[in-house]
Amino acid sequence: MTPTIGVFDSGFGGLTVLRALMARLPRAQFAFLGDTARLPYGSKSRRTIARYAAQSARFLVQEQGAEFLVIACNTASALALDAIQDAVPVPVLGVIEPGASAARAASRTGDVLVIATDATVQSHAYAAACRALGLRALEKACPLLVPLVEEGWTDRSTIALCASDAFAAQAESVPPQVAVTAEVIRIYLAELTAEAAFEGLKPDSLVLGCTHYPLLRPLLEKAVPAGMRVIDSAEAAADAAVRLFNGRAALSAQEEAECPIHSATSVEWVGENPPPLQVRCFATDSVEKFERLGSRFLGRPTGPVELVDLGG
Amino acid sequence: MTPTIGVFDSGFGGLTVLRALMARLPRAQFAFLGDTARLPYGSKSRRTIARYAAQSARFLVQEQGAEFLVIACNTASALALDAIQDAVPVPVLGVIEPGASAARAASRTGDVLVIATDATVQSHAYAAACRALGLRALEKACPLLVPLVEEGWTDRSTIALCASDAFAAQAESVPPQVAVTAEVIRIYLAELTAEAAFEGLKPDSLVLGCTHYPLLRPLLEKAVPAGMRVIDSAEAAADAAVRLFNGRAALSAQEEAECPIHSATSVEWVGENPPPLQVRCFATDSVEKFERLGSRFLGRPTGPVELVDLGG
Repeated sequence: MTPTIGVFDSGFGGLTVLRALMARLPRAQFAFLGDTARLPYGSKSRRTIARYAAQSARFLVQEQGAEFLVIACNTASALALDAIQDAVPVPVLGVIEPGASAARAASRTGDVLVIATDATVQSHAYAAACRALGLRALEKACPLLVPLVEEGWTDRSTIALCASDAFAAQAESVPPQVAVTAEVIRIYLAELTAEAAFEGLKPDSLVLGCTHYPLLRPLLEKAVPAGMRVIDSAEAAADAAVRLFNGRAALSAQEEAECPIHSATSVEWVGENPPPLQVRCFATDSVEKFERLGSRFLGRPTGPVELVDLGG
Repeated sequence: MTPTIGVFDSGFGGLTVLRALMARLPRAQFAFLGDTARLPYGSKSRRTIARYAAQSARFLVQEQGAEFLVIACNTASALALDAIQDAVPVPVLGVIEPGASAARAASRTGDVLVIATDATVQSHAYAAACRALGLRALEKACPLLVPLVEEGWTDRSTIALCASDAFAAQAESVPPQVAVTAEVIRIYLAELTAEAAFEGLKPDSLVLGCTHYPLLRPLLEKAVPAGMRVIDSAEAAADAAVRLFNGRAALSAQEEAECPIHSATSVEWVGENPPPLQVRCFATDSVEKFERLGSRFLGRPTGPVELVDLGG
């Protein structure tokens, strides 16, 4: 049995979550939908986001046969998880609670930092999820990080070299574009750690609360204070998905034993000699940008992205 | 007579155009509409943009009594000027042709550079407008500049200081946030001038093809090669608007002489002792962000921003 897992985002940043899922579930099939025509979700009302996300979830379940959904969109996870769960009859997992749980597992002081987009921070969804687990969380919006990732100013393989003697010397021959991104990260983290100190917090973990940020992980790892753990909510969500699926697989095996006709095959979620990866990517607009940038997020070519119309 | 001039943008960047208009027409009344609920226009189809822009134009004319419209949105100017002109019975002016005309007046070599958002560059509207005037234009998308302006990393008055010995020393005690913006501008301009040289162009003018960029003008002036003129399409559009209005005022005076009953008062567009500035700002969403950031673009407080619903 090769289950189909639907992964949904407002854009293509959620491909980092898909990438983490594919590494953990090599036998699964995946359908990814980026609702690119209607992004950004962050500036829209909860009601509108819930409507868009429910439409997207129904497309993945009803038209693509998804048996599980992972909401790889922080805004939709924060504001519309209930609405999506009501809209489709399959298990639905968001990215925020797994991120908070991973922070809970990693933190010794109980104080964590969260960086995210403006919309996610304004929702305070991470702070609420952390508080529910006994953590104190300080959140900071970092609006420049998404455009820096989308410009590809993240590593030397994806950027064109551009001579700058002074800046390059100062930055130890790092390309100037990457030096800019490193400096932006340094400024944001300096502001955040200063505020944490002012608030009397002793944070020891940094949660990446945006699906674009895994592409910045090497730069972030270098920038955090010594000993601070970096928690990637994309990885955390993929881990949570595997636990959920394995739990269901165990349940399915039990059901099979009790009632063989109900489930004819057992589920092998992870195994040797995986079949060719099965991913279909869909977008509601901007297919060209999705294909051009998506491979960086997915770590391999997205293949042709199919345009779908979900209506208004 | 105090004419009402409607100014429309998909967001609030067009407040730089309003600012330039207010400086030139102190006796006019203004109504500004930012269609913030539906931005960014750049990722949407021409048909959708035309529909949104026509709705917005009708609001300004029918509900706010605008007698002239300035489309302070590069995407709408590029893709929907005809549709707006069809939708309302008043004169409509965009930002692109005035920008190209100002470049034509400034350039001796006939070669110009244009920086803008990705959407504006992809429309090639500036290149077409320049070509129609006999100019060769090389366009470059600079996606980081809008978020840098919106973060306020543009001058020392709007940012919090953040210590960084190495970077500050290298940047001659400029705040590190401003040094980042200066370095981003340097990288973009280096790429653009290298491409111009490769193409055999000898550009002597740089057109700012985005309404956010006037806030970067001091940094851009420092960064361009010696002798290169910086052309602000917001200023150029305001100049064109004044010429249009003065032409109509002259026409109106002539009509008055020929047929006094038709126009009872002459139009004083510019004069001494202007009355208190009259601006009403409207937005379709995100009123809070508009008020918070808008004053930087307008150069004075926006006043309370009124929320309007233009429908889907």
